[in-house]
Amino acid sequence: MTGVEIVPLPCTREFVAGDDLADYLAPAVAAAGGLRSGDIVVVTQKAVSKCEGRVVRLSAVTPSPLAQTFARAWDKDARVVELALRGARRVVRMVRGVLITQTHHGFICANSGVDRSNTGEDEAVLLPEDPDSSAQGLRLALGRRFGVLPVVIITDTFGRAWRRGQTNVAIGLAGARPFRDYRGSIDHSGRELHATVIAVADEIAAASELVMNKADGVPAALVRGYAMPPGEGKATDLVRATNEDLFL
Amino acid sequence: MTGVEIVPLPCTREFVAGDDLADYLAPAVAAAGGLRSGDIVVVTQKAVSKCEGRVVRLSAVTPSPLAQTFARAWDKDARVVELALRGARRVVRMVRGVLITQTHHGFICANSGVDRSNTGEDEAVLLPEDPDSSAQGLRLALGRRFGVLPVVIITDTFGRAWRRGQTNVAIGLAGARPFRDYRGSIDHSGRELHATVIAVADEIAAASELVMNKADGVPAALVRGYAMPPGEGKATDLVRATNEDLFL
Repeated sequence: MTGVEIVPLPCTREFVAGDDLADYLAPAVAAAGGLRSGDIVVVTQKAVSKCEGRVVRLSAVTPSPLAQTFARAWDKDARVVELALRGARRVVRMVRGVLITQTHHGFICANSGVDRSNTGEDEAVLLPEDPDSSAQGLRLALGRRFGVLPVVIITDTFGRAWRRGQTNVAIGLAGARPFRDYRGSIDHSGRELHATVIAVADEIAAASELVMNKADGVPAALVRGYAMPPGEGKATDLVRATNEDLFL
Repeated sequence: MTGVEIVPLPCTREFVAGDDLADYLAPAVAAAGGLRSGDIVVVTQKAVSKCEGRVVRLSAVTPSPLAQTFARAWDKDARVVELALRGARRVVRMVRGVLITQTHHGFICANSGVDRSNTGEDEAVLLPEDPDSSAQGLRLALGRRFGVLPVVIITDTFGRAWRRGQTNVAIGLAGARPFRDYRGSIDHSGRELHATVIAVADEIAAASELVMNKADGVPAALVRGYAMPPGEGKATDLVRATNEDLFL
């Protein structure tokens, strides 16, 4: 049994709106030997969002009274709070300076994923409008360039309930299913394995973070040697339905 | 920049109580070329628990009335419910057949981590009593055998709030800190990164799951090429304090 390899795809040039993401990543992919069958390309949300022009000028944002009140109480930037509220389908928690929302995509995260790191002084970066579709676009574009269609995962860094620290999770997926489903399979003792569905897309996202340095220019990684569950899945499949969720 | 490699450590023999875990893993580690400086050995909870004799005969368990009522209502094994309740410091949710507890260690998971897969018909496996201490023991024992002290992570497969599917997380750690802390560091744009603390021990645990097949005999993995944050940390550091947790 061979192992899994996580190769950083460093890019030195800054993204600008309208950049073609596949063009941008192509030199790093080529330096890693091009794409092989089964390769998984993992890209940060930040890179995707910037290429898609999901960058907002803060000076053009007028905060609502709610955003102003919260920002004043907790020493936040009211315009960033406003963008987080606009990106939300619902507010999950808004206490002690923490704003946790469910985004329009369905993801639960801090500030609707609105991010100010690695961007201009007057700018904030929003999540892609449809990260699954962004992943599909990148999959096809890389496939045209390298002759092999990779699995593509778009990742962001989210906090969790109950556990300290953040980890990378999948917010976009193309070319595979996000779960490996062991239900019905037989264990080592001959007993059926129950209710074990592994969110492998999130595990790949987490693994890729290990080679992505937040402060440096590594917006992507290549994961080799892992056979993703075949089929057409989406990262939004990872979102638990509201009526099944015990922690909303 | 080089990548990260995740090498499976397959073991064909079944664990039995009293087995020395380092002896058990040694042939697979040797086959992977032995230990190098910075290597991370990741082991499943199941392997650790079995070696530590954390296996309970179900026929010897007398369920409490609460366990009986819940088991009857939701078609569960009352003895397993009883073991889950005994392993709990508090019950977080006990609804619709789902029992989520905070274990005595502080971890939030289903059934206090009590597990019946890959074990005998009349048996259930409990979490190690002190997984951080188990990790430290394995670190020292592997160090004696191979002349290099590895980082050791003990992992289990937990569900999450808000997201479907399970992922591997760290429940034991020795030889490193579980977090990479970017607070105060400077981003690409020269702006300070705020509040970004990455739970790298959980990301390593998740990555290692990719080479551990639930149905087959791969209880461990070697992670190479990732420099864990130096220092003495514990997996229990990953547990959010109850008064800081918004989702208990």
